[in-house]
Amino acid sequence: METTKKIKGGDVRAASRLIRNLEDRVPEAKTTIKHLFPLTGKAHVIGITGSPGAGKSTLTDGLIDMFRKKGKTVGVLAVDPTSPFTGGAILGDRIRMQRHAEDPGVFVRSLATRGALGGLAKAVGDAIHVMDVLGKDIVIVETVGTGQQEVDIINHSHTVLVVLVPGMGDEIQAIKAGILEIADIFVVNKADREGSSKLSRELMAMLDMAPPSTFQGGWRPPIMKVENAFEPVGFNKALEDISNKIEEHHQHLVDKDIIGSRMRRKAVVELNEAIRASILEPVLQKLLSSGQMEGLIEKVMKKEIDPYTVAEDIAKRYLEGCL
Amino acid sequence: METTKKIKGGDVRAASRLIRNLEDRVPEAKTTIKHLFPLTGKAHVIGITGSPGAGKSTLTDGLIDMFRKKGKTVGVLAVDPTSPFTGGAILGDRIRMQRHAEDPGVFVRSLATRGALGGLAKAVGDAIHVMDVLGKDIVIVETVGTGQQEVDIINHSHTVLVVLVPGMGDEIQAIKAGILEIADIFVVNKADREGSSKLSRELMAMLDMAPPSTFQGGWRPPIMKVENAFEPVGFNKALEDISNKIEEHHQHLVDKDIIGSRMRRKAVVELNEAIRASILEPVLQKLLSSGQMEGLIEKVMKKEIDPYTVAEDIAKRYLEGCL
Repeated sequence: METTKKIKGGDVRAASRLIRNLEDRVPEAKTTIKHLFPLTGKAHVIGITGSPGAGKSTLTDGLIDMFRKKGKTVGVLAVDPTSPFTGGAILGDRIRMQRHAEDPGVFVRSLATRGALGGLAKAVGDAIHVMDVLGKDIVIVETVGTGQQEVDIINHSHTVLVVLVPGMGDEIQAIKAGILEIADIFVVNKADREGSSKLSRELMAMLDMAPPSTFQGGWRPPIMKVENAFEPVGFNKALEDISNKIEEHHQHLVDKDIIGSRMRRKAVVELNEAIRASILEPVLQKLLSSGQMEGLIEKVMKKEIDPYTVAEDIAKRYLEGCL
Repeated sequence: METTKKIKGGDVRAASRLIRNLEDRVPEAKTTIKHLFPLTGKAHVIGITGSPGAGKSTLTDGLIDMFRKKGKTVGVLAVDPTSPFTGGAILGDRIRMQRHAEDPGVFVRSLATRGALGGLAKAVGDAIHVMDVLGKDIVIVETVGTGQQEVDIINHSHTVLVVLVPGMGDEIQAIKAGILEIADIFVVNKADREGSSKLSRELMAMLDMAPPSTFQGGWRPPIMKVENAFEPVGFNKALEDISNKIEEHHQHLVDKDIIGSRMRRKAVVELNEAIRASILEPVLQKLLSSGQMEGLIEKVMKKEIDPYTVAEDIAKRYLEGCL
C-alpha cells in the first residue's frame, strides 16, 4: 500500500523500483499492481513500431518535445530486445532520450523482451499501468523489431504508429511484417530518401484496396512524412503534425465510442496472461524443482516417448494432486 | 497408423493433409504425430532468418537448387505472417518456389504464424517432423520478420543462417533484432549495394569482441556474401559456397558432439509447448464455453477486479475441480 501511495503521489523512484521488480517477477510487485489496477485507465497509450533502423527512437524523442510543449506529461517504455543467452537488454535506456532526464514531466524506462517467453515483454502491460497511475498523460511504448511484438502492441495501445522507411527492397515490408492492419497512423520516415514517393503510393494503394470495415469508425490511417531529422525546422513541423494527428485519433476513439473495444482487448490479453502465469508456471516450477523435468527431457530426446503423451500424463497427475 | 505408414512411404498428399490439420489443430493430427515421433531425427534442419526484404526467399530458392544438385531431397517450410484480423497467411506458398512443384525431391509448404499465440507458428516443430519422416534430407525453415520468430528458430534448427542487407540506417540491425547470437552463418545479401563492406566490417568487429565461449566447439560464424541474384554465375557460385558451408557446419556439430545439445533444446521446447497445450488450453476452453470468461472480462474492464486476483481464483477452482 505504501508503494501504491507513493506512485500515486508521483514518486519516480518508487515507480522505477516497481517496474524493475515487475521485470524480475518479484512477488510483491504483483501485489502492488493489484492495488494500482483500479486507479488505471487515464493515460493515452501510443504504440510506436516498425522495422529495425526505421528511426523510431528519433521520432519518440521528437514526440516527447511536442507533447511537453502542449503541457502534457510523458512516460516512455522502450522495449529492447534481449540477448537469448545473456538475458540482459542490449540497448539499455535509449541514449538520445537521456537529455530529458532533468525534466520531471518525462519518465523513460526500458524493458527487455524475454526471448523464450515470447512476444512483447510480459511486464509491458503492468509497466504501462505504473506510468498511468504515476500521472503521465501520454505513455509511449516503443518496440524494436518486427513480428510478434508489433502484433502484441495493439493490445496495449490506443493509437499505433507504424514507421516505415523507403528503400527496403520490394517495398512490401509492411505487408510482410503483417503490421498493415494494426496502424492507426503511418509514418514514412527518412522521406528525403529515394523511393519515398513509391512507398507512400503503395501504402495508399493498399489502403484503397482495404474493405471499408478495416477502418474503425471510418478512420482511414493517414500517411505522415518525416524528412531528415538534421533539418530541425522541417522535422519539428512534421512532428507537430504527427502529435496533432495522434490527439485527433484519440478524440476519434472517444467520439465514435471505440475506446471501449480497445480497453476490452487489453483486458482480454491481461486476463489470459495472468491465467497462464497462475496455472502453467506452478506446474513447470514443480517439474523443474523435483527433477522430473530432466528425466522427461531425456526420454523425449531418446524418442522413447513423445512430448504429447508426456504432457497429457502431467495434466492428469496435476489434477489428481499427484505431481 | 495408416497416415503414418503413408508418410513414411513418401506420400506427399498425406503429408500435406497432416500439416494442414496440424495448423487447424485437428485432434487426430496430434495422434499421428505421436506415431511419427519415434521415426524422426534424420533430417538436417536449416533455419533462414533476417529482416523483411532481406531476400530470404531468393536464397532459399537458390539453396534448393544446390542441394538437389548434391542429390539431396529438400523440404521447405515458409513461415508467413498472419494478418491478426483475417487469420490467413498473407503470402501463401512462396510464388518463386512454385517452379520446383514438378520435382518430387522438393516439398514446399507455408505455415501461418498465429498472431495472438506468439512467436513462430506452433505447428512448425511438428511440420518439421512430418518432412523428416517423409524422407527429406534437408528441411529449410524460412521465417519472415524479425524478433521473436528469430529467437524461436534456433530451437528447431541445426544450422541457422542470418541474412542481412546493407543500407539499413545505422547498420546495427543485427544487434537491434537480437539475432546476432543465434547465427551459425551470416549471409550479407545484395552485397553489391553501398554499405556492404561497412556491414561486413561491423559484423566482423562484433564477432571479434564476442567471448570465445560464444562459438560452440570453436565454430566462428563465417560471413558469406551474395551479390545480385540477376547475375546467375556469381549468384550460383555464392550459393554453392553457402551450401558447402552449411554441410561443413553440420559435420562440425557431429564431430564436436554438439548435435546432442541442439536436440535437447528442441526437446525442451516441444515439451514445454505440449504441457502448455495440455494444461492451459482446456482451462481457457472451459472458461469460454461456459460463458464465465465474458463476465470476467467485463469486471476487469470496469476495474472491479484485477486480472491477477481473477487468475489466482481460477487456478484454485481448477485444482478443486470446480471450474
